[in-house]
Amino acid sequence: MKNIGFIGLGIMGKPMAKNLLKAGYQLIVYDINAEPVKELFEAGAREGTSSQDVASQSEVIITMLPNSPEVREVVLGEKGIIYGVKPGTVLIDMSSITPLTSKELSEKLQQKGVAMLDAPVSGGEPKAIEGTLAIMAGGPKETFDMAKDILEVMGASVTRVGEIGSGNITKLANQIIVALNIAAMGEAMVLATKAGVDPEKVYQAIRGGLAGSTVLDAKMPLVLEGNFKPGFRIELHIKDLMNALDTARELNVPDILSSQVMEIMQSLKADGKAKDDHGGIIQYYEKLAKVEVRKE
Amino acid sequence: MKNIGFIGLGIMGKPMAKNLLKAGYQLIVYDINAEPVKELFEAGAREGTSSQDVASQSEVIITMLPNSPEVREVVLGEKGIIYGVKPGTVLIDMSSITPLTSKELSEKLQQKGVAMLDAPVSGGEPKAIEGTLAIMAGGPKETFDMAKDILEVMGASVTRVGEIGSGNITKLANQIIVALNIAAMGEAMVLATKAGVDPEKVYQAIRGGLAGSTVLDAKMPLVLEGNFKPGFRIELHIKDLMNALDTARELNVPDILSSQVMEIMQSLKADGKAKDDHGGIIQYYEKLAKVEVRKE
Repeated sequence: MKNIGFIGLGIMGKPMAKNLLKAGYQLIVYDINAEPVKELFEAGAREGTSSQDVASQSEVIITMLPNSPEVREVVLGEKGIIYGVKPGTVLIDMSSITPLTSKELSEKLQQKGVAMLDAPVSGGEPKAIEGTLAIMAGGPKETFDMAKDILEVMGASVTRVGEIGSGNITKLANQIIVALNIAAMGEAMVLATKAGVDPEKVYQAIRGGLAGSTVLDAKMPLVLEGNFKPGFRIELHIKDLMNALDTARELNVPDILSSQVMEIMQSLKADGKAKDDHGGIIQYYEKLAKVEVRKE
Repeated sequence: MKNIGFIGLGIMGKPMAKNLLKAGYQLIVYDINAEPVKELFEAGAREGTSSQDVASQSEVIITMLPNSPEVREVVLGEKGIIYGVKPGTVLIDMSSITPLTSKELSEKLQQKGVAMLDAPVSGGEPKAIEGTLAIMAGGPKETFDMAKDILEVMGASVTRVGEIGSGNITKLANQIIVALNIAAMGEAMVLATKAGVDPEKVYQAIRGGLAGSTVLDAKMPLVLEGNFKPGFRIELHIKDLMNALDTARELNVPDILSSQVMEIMQSLKADGKAKDDHGGIIQYYEKLAKVEVRKE
């Protein structure tokens, strides 16, 4: 069994690290918050004193951090991974960040003889706890093959989609589709409700046809109850769309609808709803149309 | 068995009328084109000389016309239904039109003792031929109950969603969601492809998660083959979105994303693609991003 370094013990990272411990891996962990580090220590992990320290004692390093700047800091910053890492080590960054950052970091690590995968996840805290995340990985095939056993401890579906950065590209594509499918539901259902039609009947009449989607079946029942508890918070989806738009601009791809739905989310954030579930996007339409899409 | 008048024997109306004949109904038909009238005559229908004439000989009248102006003309115009219709007759308008037109016509017909349903359909020509359309009906419950047997000849799912206009409201909600889900797929997949990731792998990696949809599974395999044969033509989806926007404006509901996706479709129309399947919305993004989302 390999020694695994785990950096970033937040809502997602903590349960993912615990699952690796349970699976029998030796873990050395680091986080800027003492609390989850203590929790992992009590569960059997060793404590690192810095990212550099963790890197110097690991054959595989996993990072699970909020966004690109944090990953860059942990890899390249003061006492960063790059100053401790040995040639032959593998870095698996499971954060959702910009694919361009993944590529940049991979190139810098390669100069130290370190291979990297970008392997963002989908599924949220419940699936992190269960170890049933969907993991979309990019990077060299041989690195992926070597890391697969470790990833499968945390995920139910582990797919290599291409070279480094591809994992995050796939995650961004996923987040664009989810955001727009949720907004589509909001725009359609607010119109129907304002027109006096029972939104539950509309949902039942259309869900079996071409308008059907996982979003509609997952979110519409919650909307009908006015339940916008997260789930996946609007503020996190804003972050993902910001990364999508940055990437699209670098690549000269028009992101016409994604930019619009991000403005809708920003407007909700300004309205104090940043911590609502992204299913709460419908509230933007409800407020403007002065109607609530609820069970009759 | 009731005598049914059928007005509008286009791509959809012709097979729907044929299914009614096969089910044993007496049909009297009318269309401005002689060709389909002849075809129905040969299949056993009688020929009406005008909408007024058809109305005067029918207990139930079905209209299946392109859009609101045509339905208004056939009901209220010269030699229209309203001049021939007897009290107690039922009009089932199965066209996809603005809900406000449905309401207006219903009120005028009510003064003649005529009840009306708006019962637009979803499923396209193949399902019209099979008699397996999804039918979303609005109107008085007793009228719906009376008409249900007739509707079930043409549809596999026949749902009453509310009062008059509700059928078309539901159809508009459906078309908003479908248009935006298709555009979302386009925006996401063009970004992924331009970033160098195989779109087929992205599709496989995300289809089982929250980004999954009927649109993704129905249209993505066709996109990967570059197959944009209709199906449902972009120009018809433009019509539906125009009706959605008109309705939204009347009701003071913001249709931010629908208006944007309609502009995308208008741009495709200007580019000679009006008769492509609506899955071809992705071509808008492909052209701007200079990339094609095809099987590798």
